[in-house]
Amino acid sequence: MAEEADDNVIFVGNKPPMSYVLACVTQFNDGMDEIHIKARGKAISRAVDVAEITRNRFEEDAVIESIETGTEEIETDEGDEINVSSIDILMKK
Amino acid sequence: MAEEADDNVIFVGNKPPMSYVLACVTQFNDGMDEIHIKARGKAISRAVDVAEITRNRFEEDAVIESIETGTEEIETDEGDEINVSSIDILMKK
Repeated sequence: MAEEADDNVIFVGNKPPMSYVLACVTQFNDGMDEIHIKARGKAISRAVDVAEITRNRFEEDAVIESIETGTEEIETDEGDEINVSSIDILMKK
Repeated sequence: MAEEADDNVIFVGNKPPMSYVLACVTQFNDGMDEIHIKARGKAISRAVDVAEITRNRFEEDAVIESIETGTEEIETDEGDEINVSSIDILMKK
C-alpha cells in the first residue's frame, strides 16, 4: 500500500477526509502540479469527498483531469482472495 | 431521487450491488447503448462496484466512457443543509 506522502500519490484510508485534503493541499503547495488520489473498497467514497473538498474549498484552480476505476484481487486475513474496486482520481493544477 | 428504472439512469442506493448490476444488464439488453450509474455519499463506493462487476462479468464489450463527480447540497431530516459528493459513471456498449 502506497505511503500517503509517496511521490504525488495520496492513498485514502479510514482517517477523516480533512487529513487527506491537507495532504493534497500540501503536495500542491510543494510544487506538484498533478496528484493522484487513490482508494479501494469503501474508502472510494471518501476519496471522492477529498477531491471535491480540495477543489471546492482550497485549490480553486485545480481540476479533476480524469478518474479511473479498476478491480484488484486482495487476500483477506483469512487467506481468501476477494475482488475490491479501486479508484484513481487525477487532479491537476 | 431518480427511480432506478428511469430512462437510462441507475441510481445506486443501499441494496446489494448485484441488484443494481442486474438493472444495468437489463437496460443494455433492452437496447440502451449508454447508461448512467449515479450515487451520492457512501453509496459512491457501491456505484463503482456495480460498474466494475457489470463490465468484468456480464457486459465484456461495455466500457466506462467517463466518470464525473460533483457536490450536492441536501437537507437532512433535522433541516440542516449539508454537502454530499456525487458520482456519475457513464457506461457505453
